[in-house]
Amino acid sequence: MKKELVVVNPALEEKHRVLIRRAAEKHGYSVRFFAEAKSALPALREVEIVFGQSALLARNSPELRWLCSPSAGTDQFSKEMFASPDARLSNSSGAYGVTISEHVIMTALEMLRRQPEYSRIVENREWRRDLAVRSLFGSRITLLGTGDIGRETAARLRSFRPAVLTGVNRSGKNPAGLFDRILSPRELADVLPETDLLIISLPATAETEKMIAAAGLALLPDGALIINVGRGSVIEQQALEKELRAGRLFAALDVFEKEPLPKEDSLWTCPNLLITPHVAGNMTLPYTKDRIVDLFLEDFENYCAGKPLLRQVFPPSGTSSGS
Amino acid sequence: MKKELVVVNPALEEKHRVLIRRAAEKHGYSVRFFAEAKSALPALREVEIVFGQSALLARNSPELRWLCSPSAGTDQFSKEMFASPDARLSNSSGAYGVTISEHVIMTALEMLRRQPEYSRIVENREWRRDLAVRSLFGSRITLLGTGDIGRETAARLRSFRPAVLTGVNRSGKNPAGLFDRILSPRELADVLPETDLLIISLPATAETEKMIAAAGLALLPDGALIINVGRGSVIEQQALEKELRAGRLFAALDVFEKEPLPKEDSLWTCPNLLITPHVAGNMTLPYTKDRIVDLFLEDFENYCAGKPLLRQVFPPSGTSSGS
Repeated sequence: MKKELVVVNPALEEKHRVLIRRAAEKHGYSVRFFAEAKSALPALREVEIVFGQSALLARNSPELRWLCSPSAGTDQFSKEMFASPDARLSNSSGAYGVTISEHVIMTALEMLRRQPEYSRIVENREWRRDLAVRSLFGSRITLLGTGDIGRETAARLRSFRPAVLTGVNRSGKNPAGLFDRILSPRELADVLPETDLLIISLPATAETEKMIAAAGLALLPDGALIINVGRGSVIEQQALEKELRAGRLFAALDVFEKEPLPKEDSLWTCPNLLITPHVAGNMTLPYTKDRIVDLFLEDFENYCAGKPLLRQVFPPSGTSSGS
Repeated sequence: MKKELVVVNPALEEKHRVLIRRAAEKHGYSVRFFAEAKSALPALREVEIVFGQSALLARNSPELRWLCSPSAGTDQFSKEMFASPDARLSNSSGAYGVTISEHVIMTALEMLRRQPEYSRIVENREWRRDLAVRSLFGSRITLLGTGDIGRETAARLRSFRPAVLTGVNRSGKNPAGLFDRILSPRELADVLPETDLLIISLPATAETEKMIAAAGLALLPDGALIINVGRGSVIEQQALEKELRAGRLFAALDVFEKEPLPKEDSLWTCPNLLITPHVAGNMTLPYTKDRIVDLFLEDFENYCAGKPLLRQVFPPSGTSSGS
């Protein structure tokens, strides 16, 4: 193991490289930047720290002590795939709330205000104005997941004056008092019948897999809107498609069971559905890029000081063997 | 003149008719409902109060004392067109802020997040994710007009954490402290160069006509986004189209110099432009319908009690001859 840092990210700008280089030099690390994991492979032989999100990086770094993913979700990684038994994994949770919350509110309003239909009307140069629209105002909104994304979304939704803002999480905590109430996942069946808008920002875990299946969907009232910006595995996709095709529910999906959504997937032609190609929280917003670099540098200082990483995924905090 | 009330509005529901009927009876008025102005014509001969928005109603009601328009803008009416010299005109300002502010935020996010382009990508079943997006977060936002619409929009925008929220009005008042600062229309040239997002909710008056002309547009920084939900006459449309076609500015327009936008208008194919067919504040949202009826009934009570109308357009308040 040498004091080497490898950064793999095509979205970073020169100003970000300058910041990372400066921090690395301060602590005696050499640093190399790559746009893709494949071209980084030769540099991984003795690397100690990697800042990148490909599983290739984990599999091919035998001396790795720390991998920081620039994503919030780390479901592409498992403990087993790491070539180094000592490697810690951290994520960039906290970088995406701003951009994803804007995506959630945009797509919610697009569906409620029937913007996909109006866009076809305008494409035909028609002047039709009579589609009945709906509003966030007075809506009963439930957020599955109250982490960075759920919180930033709730803070914005609050200004639209919903009837009730319910957060669902395991901790029972109401972050910054943003929610009118917090329920546990076990109480989901109670809140779904009173949910006009269901917003999902859960990661892919064994616990969240198909958390919203046919039975849960059936509990939602007619006309309810589902927005998923978490992971596709949380919803039973086929069951949802059935409800959408029946015109009973509406959805805006940014994530899917299989991505890219296969060319032949029937979802592409499903009515009452707004599809986006997993763009709610990608790295195309300058602010997001600034944040992931800030968060990495913050934990880089922690790492160099032998302190716990703030966004460590595994080993679970407290069991770390130190840097 | 008889104690007659005529209501012309195809959007009202039975619950609204019940409320209006109940109030009318209480004060000894007979009431008739129509879906369109033309069919109401025979009922106008001796009518005292009309609740409707067609100029036909003003022109054909010789005994009219009060016309309440369910719209916020009343530019289709002029003092001269009223067959009755004693008629007062009031509007329904306060009913549209909720729906129009949602439209503003939806279209702002659609343009900033390049949703029209993503919607074409998805139409072609492509999985492209790399379009650079922008954010309301950190944006410098200027609102021309700080009435009901400007206020409701500002209250929501605040939650997106803009860099600065500037209101422009004649009164100098900062309603509910919602804005970071209030400038006068004379200071427009100072704020335009520092405006990333310009939101216009001004009515059509001699004073607002072409308030944003070629010179003003030229002051906006590259990439600025203009949203107009007021009246088309406020912007010099041809000058804006030039900037949009040059790729220098972006716009989401709900109102136009001529409506419906003529089939042959070059704006239909203009890039960097999101067109909606004057739907930001129409009467298709149930809440809006409830509000216009509430506001009418409130002023109906004022009228019957000989008190000033709260939303009187002319004669200017204070000069009214009473009911």
